[in-house]
Amino acid sequence: MKLPVYQWQSLGERAQNKLLQRPAIQSSAQLKDDVRAIINDVQRRGDKAVKKYTQRFDNATIEALKVEEIEFANAELSLGFNEREAILQAIDNIRCFHEAQRNVDIDIDIETVSGMRCQRLTRPIRAVGLYVPSGSAPLPSAAMMLAIPASIAGCPTRVLCTPPNADGTVDPGILFAAHEAGVRDVYKIGGAQAIAAMAYGTESIPKVDKLFGPGNAFVTEAKSQVASDPLGAAQDMPAGPSEVLVIADGSANPNYVAADLLSQAEHGPDSQVLLLTDSAELIEHVSLAIERQLESLDRAEIITESLSHSALIEVDSIESAIAISNRYAPEHLIVNTKKPRRWLDRITAAGSVFLGPLTPESLGDYCSGTNHVLPTYGYARNYSGLGLEQFCLQMSVQEASPQGLANTGPVAEVLATLEGLDAHALAVRLRLDDNDVD
Amino acid sequence: MKLPVYQWQSLGERAQNKLLQRPAIQSSAQLKDDVRAIINDVQRRGDKAVKKYTQRFDNATIEALKVEEIEFANAELSLGFNEREAILQAIDNIRCFHEAQRNVDIDIDIETVSGMRCQRLTRPIRAVGLYVPSGSAPLPSAAMMLAIPASIAGCPTRVLCTPPNADGTVDPGILFAAHEAGVRDVYKIGGAQAIAAMAYGTESIPKVDKLFGPGNAFVTEAKSQVASDPLGAAQDMPAGPSEVLVIADGSANPNYVAADLLSQAEHGPDSQVLLLTDSAELIEHVSLAIERQLESLDRAEIITESLSHSALIEVDSIESAIAISNRYAPEHLIVNTKKPRRWLDRITAAGSVFLGPLTPESLGDYCSGTNHVLPTYGYARNYSGLGLEQFCLQMSVQEASPQGLANTGPVAEVLATLEGLDAHALAVRLRLDDNDVD
Repeated sequence: MKLPVYQWQSLGERAQNKLLQRPAIQSSAQLKDDVRAIINDVQRRGDKAVKKYTQRFDNATIEALKVEEIEFANAELSLGFNEREAILQAIDNIRCFHEAQRNVDIDIDIETVSGMRCQRLTRPIRAVGLYVPSGSAPLPSAAMMLAIPASIAGCPTRVLCTPPNADGTVDPGILFAAHEAGVRDVYKIGGAQAIAAMAYGTESIPKVDKLFGPGNAFVTEAKSQVASDPLGAAQDMPAGPSEVLVIADGSANPNYVAADLLSQAEHGPDSQVLLLTDSAELIEHVSLAIERQLESLDRAEIITESLSHSALIEVDSIESAIAISNRYAPEHLIVNTKKPRRWLDRITAAGSVFLGPLTPESLGDYCSGTNHVLPTYGYARNYSGLGLEQFCLQMSVQEASPQGLANTGPVAEVLATLEGLDAHALAVRLRLDDNDVD
Repeated sequence: MKLPVYQWQSLGERAQNKLLQRPAIQSSAQLKDDVRAIINDVQRRGDKAVKKYTQRFDNATIEALKVEEIEFANAELSLGFNEREAILQAIDNIRCFHEAQRNVDIDIDIETVSGMRCQRLTRPIRAVGLYVPSGSAPLPSAAMMLAIPASIAGCPTRVLCTPPNADGTVDPGILFAAHEAGVRDVYKIGGAQAIAAMAYGTESIPKVDKLFGPGNAFVTEAKSQVASDPLGAAQDMPAGPSEVLVIADGSANPNYVAADLLSQAEHGPDSQVLLLTDSAELIEHVSLAIERQLESLDRAEIITESLSHSALIEVDSIESAIAISNRYAPEHLIVNTKKPRRWLDRITAAGSVFLGPLTPESLGDYCSGTNHVLPTYGYARNYSGLGLEQFCLQMSVQEASPQGLANTGPVAEVLATLEGLDAHALAVRLRLDDNDVD
């Protein structure tokens, strides 16, 4: 498996744009219709429909959809000591980073003019729904990344859905992680039926206001459909295949660069990995290291597929590489250069940045502390990675004293009149006429 | 015009739910197709298409789409002294409130464990597009509410579109407000063609990453369509008709309450206004005051229509009223009771809250300082009103020292293995093997 190599400067604008294009994703009309049918059915028949689809898609017959206390206890017992400790350590780090976000007091309480008190206050979203994929690849890390901020934000209702195995059990790593991260309402439901159940509520699943988390094409399409219904639930961010862009100079260890590219490529066949470097020699060595490392990897088939829409690109300077990266807006950006921190100020659009030779993306995926739910597919130019703020609302408040009314009322009256809204003007005028200060 | 009166306690659950239902809004299939055609045309033919639709929808022949310096100067001259002063005063207050948001340093820089440095950094969105409706009702206030946070957030490219009059001019209030609020790139384009032009760029209009602002059905549908295209532009929030919920007790002045209800009702025929009060007497007096005030108002026809899906509701206590309001999640919530501030902690979902007798919604619409772009139609339960954060991105950063790698690498390795991602484990293992500390 040889990755294609390009020299950025030698390409025309068209070819450059093409190189930065992501593999196309699009929900087929069939998928949209299938998902719509599932959502309608769950809205109409609740748990009955949920159980039917669980039978159909997960081959599991589930009587009680909700995970019971004893199942959490069994999950803990079934994990090895090292696994439990790793999950607990990861939770500690992630909690530390997200508690730091809570500790920033963003609320505002000021007088904009004398007597006009204005505030901006934070409220946790009442009910949030967390989706954690499982099945062939259970993701305990996703459970941590969703449950921790939801808990720290203080959302009163926190619901987590994850698909069951055919025997009706749920992945023990996911159960243990969710429990330790502060989520006890876990349901054995996957796919579009889980999204519909949380968006509209059923007999056993509470309705939520916002949905979070990754998922397959069904989950993604279902999140998008319920988010476009005012009576459904909002969603965290649009989905897309995972991706990494590595910027490296001649000082980088090619084995590290190769491993970073491969670890992103193993996520799925539609993943994209790009290397930008000013060193032709590094490209050569990385190329060889990829071939060598690939031999020992379990998911070589997936990797080979995803490498087919990836590239090693030679640029004239690290400065150019940063500019290209800002244009591409990668989900993950690894800067493996001498003094990587000097470039940080120039990075304007990236989900998460990894600085230096000792910070592989794997650390951020699991346990550096940052959140691994990140905007991908170019959405890093207009969406942020998951943080406490997405689990909260900002509400503004104002209160005028007589002085405040005197200072703002006449302004409002003029502007309302200018916009031809005389009832707006009247609401102010009535008060000004009664007001002592005016 | 008599508003219907209800007693909340005497209604069954079904009737209660029905009372809190918003008037249905839905884009027709025809509208969706029309908007899609406009977007495709603008994508393909750029300025040519924009000019064609400006001719068709605004009856205006525009040669130069961009507003020139002289036009800003003329706009200023054509406004009266009072109008200019009112706009400047409003800008001062709004700027004050939004600068307070910038002054909160939300960036984070911590070690989650020894040697594992994690940061969260703020970046302004590179390019934002602001839409300001005009035509029959030009909205200089919308120009202020969008341009001020965009400028304070420091978005390098700030584009504003507003539809021209038939003579090719733009409303002077909008031009003056935009200019004073820090936006100079103003284009004479309205409707879906403006949204398409900003989302994809044309010869004369720069492509933006996110779109902000209110609009008619065409604008709303266009924003939603370009937001669902990864190559388009994100949008601020879903749209819906404006609404107010007033909570008042027996101490409230019925003239004020009536005027507040009417001022919301004049926004459009699909607006909704609700009064919740524990005083039957207040309902009677408000009802009479509405009839009386309505006689003198210009937009009586619109108001009458919007009052037809509005209601005066008697509740058993202000406490109940707050609970009902949280369920309804109003865009605007006026709390006109004795000691209104005592209820603030219990309010969990509202776009903007107005406390006390002297704080009509008109103040927030124009000049208290808070932003009037707010989630409506129930979206206040899962979206925030406009603030600086929507003009910014949060980017996470991590950097491991040898100690940091030693503290987190083994955890990542265990979790990657647990999730069956061995390339992730390898990227860590290679470094741990070379690392001094391990």
